[in-house]
Amino acid sequence: MKFKPPKGTRDFLPEEMIKREFVIEKIKRIFTLYGFDPLETPIFEDWNLLTKKCGEDIKEQIYKFEDKAGRKLGLRFDLTVGMARVVASNPQLPKPFKRYCIAPAWRYEDVSTGRKREFVQADIDIVGVKGMEAEAECLACAVDCLKALGFDDFEILINNRKILDGFLELAEIPSEKNLDVFRAVDKLEKIGEMGVRKELERIGLEERQIKKLLELISIRGKCQETLKKGRELLRGVKVAEEGLNEIEEIFRLGKIYGFSDFLTLDFSLARGLDYYTGPIFEVKVKTSKQIGSIAGGGRYDELIELLGGTPTPATGISLGIERIVEIMKAEEMFKLPKTRTKVFVANVNEEVKEKAIRIAQDLRRNGIECQVDLMGRNLTRQLEYADSLGIPFVIIIGPKELKEMKVKVRDMEKKSETEVNINELIGFLKNLS
Amino acid sequence: MKFKPPKGTRDFLPEEMIKREFVIEKIKRIFTLYGFDPLETPIFEDWNLLTKKCGEDIKEQIYKFEDKAGRKLGLRFDLTVGMARVVASNPQLPKPFKRYCIAPAWRYEDVSTGRKREFVQADIDIVGVKGMEAEAECLACAVDCLKALGFDDFEILINNRKILDGFLELAEIPSEKNLDVFRAVDKLEKIGEMGVRKELERIGLEERQIKKLLELISIRGKCQETLKKGRELLRGVKVAEEGLNEIEEIFRLGKIYGFSDFLTLDFSLARGLDYYTGPIFEVKVKTSKQIGSIAGGGRYDELIELLGGTPTPATGISLGIERIVEIMKAEEMFKLPKTRTKVFVANVNEEVKEKAIRIAQDLRRNGIECQVDLMGRNLTRQLEYADSLGIPFVIIIGPKELKEMKVKVRDMEKKSETEVNINELIGFLKNLS
Repeated sequence: MKFKPPKGTRDFLPEEMIKREFVIEKIKRIFTLYGFDPLETPIFEDWNLLTKKCGEDIKEQIYKFEDKAGRKLGLRFDLTVGMARVVASNPQLPKPFKRYCIAPAWRYEDVSTGRKREFVQADIDIVGVKGMEAEAECLACAVDCLKALGFDDFEILINNRKILDGFLELAEIPSEKNLDVFRAVDKLEKIGEMGVRKELERIGLEERQIKKLLELISIRGKCQETLKKGRELLRGVKVAEEGLNEIEEIFRLGKIYGFSDFLTLDFSLARGLDYYTGPIFEVKVKTSKQIGSIAGGGRYDELIELLGGTPTPATGISLGIERIVEIMKAEEMFKLPKTRTKVFVANVNEEVKEKAIRIAQDLRRNGIECQVDLMGRNLTRQLEYADSLGIPFVIIIGPKELKEMKVKVRDMEKKSETEVNINELIGFLKNLS
Repeated sequence: MKFKPPKGTRDFLPEEMIKREFVIEKIKRIFTLYGFDPLETPIFEDWNLLTKKCGEDIKEQIYKFEDKAGRKLGLRFDLTVGMARVVASNPQLPKPFKRYCIAPAWRYEDVSTGRKREFVQADIDIVGVKGMEAEAECLACAVDCLKALGFDDFEILINNRKILDGFLELAEIPSEKNLDVFRAVDKLEKIGEMGVRKELERIGLEERQIKKLLELISIRGKCQETLKKGRELLRGVKVAEEGLNEIEEIFRLGKIYGFSDFLTLDFSLARGLDYYTGPIFEVKVKTSKQIGSIAGGGRYDELIELLGGTPTPATGISLGIERIVEIMKAEEMFKLPKTRTKVFVANVNEEVKEKAIRIAQDLRRNGIECQVDLMGRNLTRQLEYADSLGIPFVIIIGPKELKEMKVKVRDMEKKSETEVNINELIGFLKNLS
């Protein structure tokens, strides 16, 4: 009987892992440059905590279980809820609290869309900041992550739940329907305008409300012009004006930070989670429309209080590692080796095997990644093994050369060999790359 | 209502995370030097896969659940089973297959012992090697990890399931009881000799069998002498002689690799998992007896075949991150900052805030981790914030200094200030540490 990874999950073999770790390390480095420190929380949480403000759609997607004592638990569906719980129960944390977390989350989604049920998110959140400085830092940091990975052609879609609230007010939709409407609008790209129309009908909106709403959310464009349009449409709708002011402030700060050119104000952006309260954003790579957004986030000023903390504003953004890796593979943006091993230390025969191990240990002590033969293979098969893994260099230890304190270094790609004095070996290898 | 992390799990706040990441990075570096490449598998697996060869005790500890389609799943209790599944279903992987994985696993254990139910393991495994070269590499690598972390006073307890098989043969215990007996013997340190005696009675052993077995497993000591004792006791017991030869070979290779001085041959070492078939080992820190082992592993030559693969020998060792961190904290082995942020860029007033952001962005582009004020605080409160986080340096941006193209750099520990030209700032900060 053969076993496969459970449906919706994957194994990541070394060649793929090296790509993933490259992406994760780059992102972690940028997060740290922006003053975010690491925080980790358990992969499962109290069921009541998880479902406090996630919304019905997400609730349906949570992997639910009980432990042996009957505690109702669930695998986390994002990294925000656990972090919010930590903040709620640790009021001593200095504010702003800036944390990052790069870790997996789980949602039981329809796998036919290419989505996986296990996925890694790279999150930054700023807790304790009411002003748009928090949004600006999160967006600047996300943009720098993408640039560091080699992306240049992307856009940040931005909107504000307050603007959407204003739309509903304009369309005379009662405010208790807001979250249902947002969730419907969020599916625009997935199910199209006709699909959203159906959803809105299902929620019980009237034709004139639907028409008005669809008209409003069809507006998108460069920040400044679209802000102007929004101001005209929403004049006098107080909550929306506040939302527009916030977007304008993010735009202003974006010019200082240097990310304002990436901003597109898109009044249809709604985001699926119930906990958002202010600006929301999504990052899309223009060349890979089919992959959807590679990052998303927003402000959730009520979540921490809802989880038992004092009222605490918070904003965050999350980068999707799988989607970033997929696009980078498709666009051939990776220039990485198949293995991290630089050198294979081969022995010509049993007699020099001990010497091969001693040389390998010496290389390791000097920071050179290497392997030795562990299977008693002959030289040809050792070379084949090194080649199959993609190890770029092989040191050949032979009795004749050893007598002259020398070894051969074989460049596996160029198929050339150089004799090197043993006491010059480390310097020689460090100069190769 | 306040929420806590689920029982048996913990949150890791930044100061703790910086310690954990330090340990993980060091270990990952050594794993890579030894030619191990990364592999990751899902955190949950098919229930039937997990329970194929884990033994009854572990089976009871698995977090079990079903997904929405009714698939029976469980959170992995170690990293070995997933890896073995990958090898079983990917016969194309070149052998030896050397992989590492540093990731969490879950067991529903008794938390009163200080054990957690969520814990991170750092595993290396070598797949495809019949000979003791695999054990030697794993042990050499584990020893180098511990040395790199600053440990020097530890021992590697080693034994062989084949020697234990021989003991059972000598004590005339029927071989179908082997796994039950091993599991009982494994608890020696936890429950004492009396406890083990009771367990063995429960399994149905006779007094003379128990006496003989307890006598045999009481032998331990330096490798060479203990091997000699073992050879005398086990003369003619074929399976045990094979086991002793394997230990001797590990000892011989250990002298070449440089870890033989750490070896203690301990005939009571049994290890709790059912899948071991050959040499087994555990690493203990001598000064922290109460913490138990910080690493453990062994050979499992039958597991991959059992999971549907071709017969493939395999050996591995696993380091316990939480236990290593706990000992290092107790022994004050960490010399790490509370935050990774090096610099806080403070502004004296609103007028220079934009300049502060621009300087911070410039520092970040030059690899200096920094924060700016996000809350419109006055200078005193900005300094307090930097101090509360443990940020070592504050750059103070003031209008007067700016006119002369200067800033003040404050050393928060020494409480001293230096005026620095803006265009020399990066060089100045890089020279501090």
